[in-house]
Amino acid sequence: MTKLPKLVVVGVGLIGGSFALALKARGVVGEVVGIGRSQKNLDEALAAGVIDRAATCDVPWTRELGDADLVLLAAPVGEFPALFAAMSGALGEGAIVTDAGSTKGDVVAAARAHLGVAMPRFVPAHPIAGAEHSGARAAFAALFEGRRAVLTPLPETDAHALARVRALWEACGAEIVTLDPARHDRILAAVSHLPHFLAAAYVAELAARSESSDLLGLAGTGFRDFTRIAASSPPMWRDIGLANREALRREIAAFRGALDVLDAALRDGDGQALAAMLETAAKARRAWGSRPGCG
Amino acid sequence: MTKLPKLVVVGVGLIGGSFALALKARGVVGEVVGIGRSQKNLDEALAAGVIDRAATCDVPWTRELGDADLVLLAAPVGEFPALFAAMSGALGEGAIVTDAGSTKGDVVAAARAHLGVAMPRFVPAHPIAGAEHSGARAAFAALFEGRRAVLTPLPETDAHALARVRALWEACGAEIVTLDPARHDRILAAVSHLPHFLAAAYVAELAARSESSDLLGLAGTGFRDFTRIAASSPPMWRDIGLANREALRREIAAFRGALDVLDAALRDGDGQALAAMLETAAKARRAWGSRPGCG
Repeated sequence: MTKLPKLVVVGVGLIGGSFALALKARGVVGEVVGIGRSQKNLDEALAAGVIDRAATCDVPWTRELGDADLVLLAAPVGEFPALFAAMSGALGEGAIVTDAGSTKGDVVAAARAHLGVAMPRFVPAHPIAGAEHSGARAAFAALFEGRRAVLTPLPETDAHALARVRALWEACGAEIVTLDPARHDRILAAVSHLPHFLAAAYVAELAARSESSDLLGLAGTGFRDFTRIAASSPPMWRDIGLANREALRREIAAFRGALDVLDAALRDGDGQALAAMLETAAKARRAWGSRPGCG
Repeated sequence: MTKLPKLVVVGVGLIGGSFALALKARGVVGEVVGIGRSQKNLDEALAAGVIDRAATCDVPWTRELGDADLVLLAAPVGEFPALFAAMSGALGEGAIVTDAGSTKGDVVAAARAHLGVAMPRFVPAHPIAGAEHSGARAAFAALFEGRRAVLTPLPETDAHALARVRALWEACGAEIVTLDPARHDRILAAVSHLPHFLAAAYVAELAARSESSDLLGLAGTGFRDFTRIAASSPPMWRDIGLANREALRREIAAFRGALDVLDAALRDGDGQALAAMLETAAKARRAWGSRPGCG
């Protein structure tokens, strides 16, 4: 594939850092410049070879954009409007922009509000990969292998920019799925955002109890797995919750309906209803777990 | 420690099988007899060396109890009343009985209703260990190492029987915690039973949608961990839900309260409230994850 002489990664965390490492491992990228707010994280990214040069957001970092071939936004989505505003005008004519935001409707709206003539060269993206660890030190080249990357191209998206971004995510090992932004956000609310917020609400409620230490002392491997995502980055998930709140609230309402059914079965001592729900869940979860890339 | 010449395991699944394997590995058990309903599972247990002899529940298995030194009940708790009734009268005078049921109030009530003069030699227990796999083939000797085993001795419990059961779970590598049965059930409802039923209700609700395949196709590692327990044995969890339904319904009510707070924060676009909840959860989960035996 065509080499990428200069990549600028804004937000050198798990996702941005792993994208850089994956492209470096494939030999398709020249120089990687990392932009971030934390000097410590950028220093760690430099030390780990994730990036070749760094600039914090305090200095005029947008001067790095004039000769950039690709800019990846991998900061929390709440920062995107300010980032797009800062980028607009600084981007060179050949620069393609993509992102790794977990929500797409708000990201597209922010891009349209600020990117101006560069808007056709923005390809909204969301790699479905993550971990409870964050920061450049958590990054690794294989993060996207066998995972899905969703692209949500728009009517105005340039075909060449789309093909280029698609090829780069494929070079990272990802399988490409194309969706419109609203459908992406509805699906992710159901399979990603809701579980994150359920796990967090559950742990926060337990932790606030006076006997929380006694409770957590008897928590086992089921608790461990169910709550692993509750340790994820709070600022990132606050932004996701706010950005996708309408779809997320619809998912919460649907889940409340499922809780009502469960609670009624328990109240009535209805073993058949409980068994039916548990069987449906176990069958679906086992089938999902046997899909490639899902285990 | 004193050797156990004959162990009878009723229900040779992950827990019962791993108990037998752990005691065999430590050289403290002589013969292990497995009792179960499925000939196939018993055959697999024999082939894997988990048990030395087998009997299905169809034949008069209680004749194995006359010279048993320890009987472990590791079947779904819903079967315990019938098992206790069948055992009463068949137990030898020296036989100690213990169990691995995930609930204790109902198990103690069933034992008191049926065990008669053997009741002081029943030591209710619950090892906090499990996995989404079940059956004898899933058993392994190290399952209980570094995990907690709760004992809920009763006023009538014989001190020698208690010491013996305690020593055996310790021989399996478990750390012993002593609680009264009602408190055990309240705590486990919060840290084990609620997460299991939340995960199952969530997966069952998704699976019932017409677009479930599209949804599950974009589920990632967060979904994978959050829902792992939803693949657990449905009959086992139906029984746990029914046995501990009062405590579980109180936990569901508390969780609904947490959902109300979350939903209000989303409705109001209250980023501070969302961040506070996510921070509380992340801090508590990270602290828990760094405890020994919890990782």
